Amino acid sequence: MEIGDTGSTPKGAATRSEILRVAANVFARKGFEQTRMDDIIREVGLTKGAIYFHFSSKALLAQAVVDEQKARWLRRVQEEILSKNNPPEELRNLGEFMVRTVLSDSSAWGVVHLANQLASVKGHPGGTSPLAAWVDLVAGILQRGRASGVLTFSGDPSDAATVIVAAFDGLKSVTDALDPRDLDAFERRATLLLQILERQFISS
Amino acid sequence: MEIGDTGSTPKGAATRSEILRVAANVFARKGFEQTRMDDIIREVGLTKGAIYFHFSSKALLAQAVVDEQKARWLRRVQEEILSKNNPPEELRNLGEFMVRTVLSDSSAWGVVHLANQLASVKGHPGGTSPLAAWVDLVAGILQRGRASGVLTFSGDPSDAATVIVAAFDGLKSVTDALDPRDLDAFERRATLLLQILERQFISS
Repeated sequence: MEIGDTGSTPKGAATRSEILRVAANVFARKGFEQTRMDDIIREVGLTKGAIYFHFSSKALLAQAVVDEQKARWLRRVQEEILSKNNPPEELRNLGEFMVRTVLSDSSAWGVVHLANQLASVKGHPGGTSPLAAWVDLVAGILQRGRASGVLTFSGDPSDAATVIVAAFDGLKSVTDALDPRDLDAFERRATLLLQILERQFISS
Repeated sequence: MEIGDTGSTPKGAATRSEILRVAANVFARKGFEQTRMDDIIREVGLTKGAIYFHFSSKALLAQAVVDEQKARWLRRVQEEILSKNNPPEELRNLGEFMVRTVLSDSSAWGVVHLANQLASVKGHPGGTSPLAAWVDLVAGILQRGRASGVLTFSGDPSDAATVIVAAFDGLKSVTDALDPRDLDAFERRATLLLQILERQFISS
């Protein structure tokens, strides 16, 4: 049994998944440091005992939030995007997928930062950062695209992929800082960013 | 007298400036929440009383760090870059200036995030975010450049400027998260980002 995995009955699985959903929101809103287990307990509306039965510490709960969301979007990207085997199309769709992720669920992109905050918790084993998973995904598309002549860029695919993922991540953080909750501003700027990337990376 | 400004004698000014230098490093390393006044007091090597004489709280000290660095780079950008009155040159030089800032002083770009952290401190008045100052600066260059036909982009100059500043800010955060202290990786990726921006914004 994995740590924190007590979803062995349908009821247990439903409870676990509800805790993860609420916890993702609280962590996204308050950050890892500022969140107390009590905040999550209050919002979930279960007893302290019930939550600790599923997750024995705040760090393990946060890690489960990260792992669950990462597994979910990696599966979706695999099924909906990489299966096309058409690098320019994949790059476009991945960009749109990232924008939709942010617009449809305010806590979704937050797991990227939750994972970074967790990485500095002493004694916590952690896992691969979702940021690193995004970078690998984009680097894979760039590499295949350059090999078949449909994508153009110079240098290391992993560096170019980091620039792309970082531009997107920065746009989310900076818009949150300067224009909190202004989803229209995020969407306008993200559209501009995707146009820039399209013109830069996709051979015409 | 401004809050925290006790630099009315040369010795007072030197002490104040040394406290700000050390505090900028500690805040950059540990973040605002995790930093305690005691950490700064220990690193500065002065008594508690001497530090509190200059700055009566952690939030006021952090604000002084932000204000001082912001005033310093705004002055330099004004003198060294905007005075050229040549938008493509200014945009190139500003990009190089941002990269040099990160490479030469690890705490320098950190004030941007320190300002964001301060913005969520209850009861703290704050000031204009350095991120907003960067965006305004870039937006001004873009606007002048488009008016004289030497820069090209579509949409609002302020949105385009936010995309540029955010791409840079994201690159710093993501490189810090994935490859901590790897300045070479940062420089390689930043060079790639500047090339992309150059091709996108500067009319050939």
